[in-house]
Amino acid sequence: MGKECIRVGLVGAGTIGKGVVDLYKRNGDLINDRIDFAVTLAKVADQDHKRLQALDLDEKMLSTDAAEVLDDPEIDIVIELIGGIEPARSFIAQALENGKYVVTANKDMMARHGQELLALAREKNLNIFYEASVGGGIPLIRPLKHSLVADRVSRVLGIVNGTTNYIFTRMAQDDLSLEDALSEAQRLGFAEADPTNDIEGLDAAYKLVIMANLAFGKKADFDQVHIEGIKGVTYEDIAYAREIGYTIKLLAIGEDLPEGLALRIHPALVPMEHPLASVLNELNAVFIESEAAKELMFYGPGAGPMPTAAAILSDVVEAARCIRFNVSNGVVEGELQDTGFVPIGAVECRFYLRFLVEDRAGVFASLANAFADEGVSLDMVIQKRRVGNLAEVVLVTHEVREEAFHRALSKVTGITAIKPNPSIIRLLG
Amino acid sequence: MGKECIRVGLVGAGTIGKGVVDLYKRNGDLINDRIDFAVTLAKVADQDHKRLQALDLDEKMLSTDAAEVLDDPEIDIVIELIGGIEPARSFIAQALENGKYVVTANKDMMARHGQELLALAREKNLNIFYEASVGGGIPLIRPLKHSLVADRVSRVLGIVNGTTNYIFTRMAQDDLSLEDALSEAQRLGFAEADPTNDIEGLDAAYKLVIMANLAFGKKADFDQVHIEGIKGVTYEDIAYAREIGYTIKLLAIGEDLPEGLALRIHPALVPMEHPLASVLNELNAVFIESEAAKELMFYGPGAGPMPTAAAILSDVVEAARCIRFNVSNGVVEGELQDTGFVPIGAVECRFYLRFLVEDRAGVFASLANAFADEGVSLDMVIQKRRVGNLAEVVLVTHEVREEAFHRALSKVTGITAIKPNPSIIRLLG
Repeated sequence: MGKECIRVGLVGAGTIGKGVVDLYKRNGDLINDRIDFAVTLAKVADQDHKRLQALDLDEKMLSTDAAEVLDDPEIDIVIELIGGIEPARSFIAQALENGKYVVTANKDMMARHGQELLALAREKNLNIFYEASVGGGIPLIRPLKHSLVADRVSRVLGIVNGTTNYIFTRMAQDDLSLEDALSEAQRLGFAEADPTNDIEGLDAAYKLVIMANLAFGKKADFDQVHIEGIKGVTYEDIAYAREIGYTIKLLAIGEDLPEGLALRIHPALVPMEHPLASVLNELNAVFIESEAAKELMFYGPGAGPMPTAAAILSDVVEAARCIRFNVSNGVVEGELQDTGFVPIGAVECRFYLRFLVEDRAGVFASLANAFADEGVSLDMVIQKRRVGNLAEVVLVTHEVREEAFHRALSKVTGITAIKPNPSIIRLLG
Repeated sequence: MGKECIRVGLVGAGTIGKGVVDLYKRNGDLINDRIDFAVTLAKVADQDHKRLQALDLDEKMLSTDAAEVLDDPEIDIVIELIGGIEPARSFIAQALENGKYVVTANKDMMARHGQELLALAREKNLNIFYEASVGGGIPLIRPLKHSLVADRVSRVLGIVNGTTNYIFTRMAQDDLSLEDALSEAQRLGFAEADPTNDIEGLDAAYKLVIMANLAFGKKADFDQVHIEGIKGVTYEDIAYAREIGYTIKLLAIGEDLPEGLALRIHPALVPMEHPLASVLNELNAVFIESEAAKELMFYGPGAGPMPTAAAILSDVVEAARCIRFNVSNGVVEGELQDTGFVPIGAVECRFYLRFLVEDRAGVFASLANAFADEGVSLDMVIQKRRVGNLAEVVLVTHEVREEAFHRALSKVTGITAIKPNPSIIRLLG
């Protein structure tokens, strides 16, 4: 039997850190009623003294020096909430070196350096818990680790970025342009002042790497993720998608294929009847396809101080349980297999394509030939509204290897009657 | 440190039992790769020797006598899959008395006797795991126990019966009558030959009791669940519901109210944009409303041998981990608070009401007065198709206490121009 009272230190008192303190104040007694030992928030560090003061805690618990948490022998668990790679990575390593369990919500760092830090934790007979790093308040890491231990996950499909999901929802429901939807998201706090990481898909890619590591037990590398953001999607695409029974979502897709892992972030047409289609506004969901369970979905708030704090405190309880019962590592996350990656060109997909074409005889024939030459067969051809002497054409292909599609596409865009810069969006198959 | 190799015995080799054996054969090595100790299926008992032979296991592992599993000192974990109250309850008690951890998928028994058996497990420093008892392959019990430890659940909304969800889906999509949809469900194996427990809501009620105990930490009593089955819902109701933006689902609803727990099973109109509305066919989902996370949903297969087996084997790993690391109880589920129950009459709800009325002057006025007298205000009044000299009327009330609604209803049905036996369905608010 280990210690009866587990002491927790927090590094980083920003929005999420304050959320953790607030939820601990409100529900700390509840938590301690639910477990047969005690967890106490003992110390909080942040460089910014104003942030510390805003926590409304006993001054003796506060410090502007992270080392006062990381090196305090009385602290058993360190919650890292400063975000970014450094100094977060060094802080976590220091906490582990000092024999402390770690809880973090840091997706960038877990995606980039999670495996090296988890290896250090294993070496020290400790562990790192990171439920809040993907899907905010959605229980996801724990189910992937524990509930699917007897199952084989073949594909992970995630709506893991609230900003872009909010933008697509507003574009679809209120016929807004991407720019207007983004401004609204920023006004309501669903998008940051600099939304680059969200809009360009980097945030989703970090989360995909973390999920793929766990779901497949294989090494997922951030640099091997094919990343496309949402900039190319217009209101018209969303309207056409709806007409043919689809909605558009930014998806994080991880597949465990015989040739390796295929990892990608891109907007995709999702069939209306798919459970991911009804994930609206800033909400997130992860859909999992597996051998035994076949299909599972986990849905909820992907961000926000309270949901994220609930996930962090559930990790604190799990870490505390390890300490209390001397379980050492809890669940070991072993070395990941390295099976390599499938380049995007080798992935098979259906494509939606929208472009303007001069409305004259023979154009459709050249178009059809260009696709046929590369073995790309068409599932749907719709000629839509006319703009002057131009017709708008929407095509949907059958499943095709990306590189074949792009060869066909370069032939198609070479036809002079076809105007440049078509909209191209993949379909979820 | 406890034992390095954990031996598992299985009692009950029906469909689910065979699923567990099959999944263990297929993924046993995978499981043992993922954990740092070994789990072995050592013995299987079933009264029916034919069932045992169908497992295709070494004859030495098989027995027609459950005691050979329950009393074997070499067995560490007993999986109970015989279902029903007795002898399952006695078998589980016997396994606990003999110092074994228990894994079960038995919803009836956990709903009726779960608390007494969990108390026995606590006394013996053991535990019972029952992930598969609600929602089949959906990770649900484990997230409720662990992930929401810092949160307060206020409401649980479940589509937890696959048979009735399949029936409503077919009625809505293919304009089938309830009887035809049920026959189809039986033909496809989504409904049993005797579907009473499903159709009448008992199966959902068992699952609700288990969820409510865990989600609220309060004593839920099967006999306090208000249960209405799906028999009263017609194809017409589904069509009218769709017209006003709703779909119909059989819901298991548990609420933690200041006056006590309100527990009920009934069909309900669910807004099309609610995530539960897109749970189709035989699939299940549980939607959770809580203080911190606000809304969460867990979606997946509610039944079937493979999904259920995956849940059972994940419980086996959790039990094995307790034994391996001497964690004794793992997570303690303590004594539940007894806060009493809210009778259905005191619950507030919106109602949908459909009836035939003689189409003559003054009828609408008497109708409106009957509702007004009881303080029931109407949100929507639609006069629909005519059948001879009868008009079909659909009403939707604002939120109203059930007993007030029923007082108004008895006045309404007392109006001679109104034909008896209206359709009455609650709305999810």
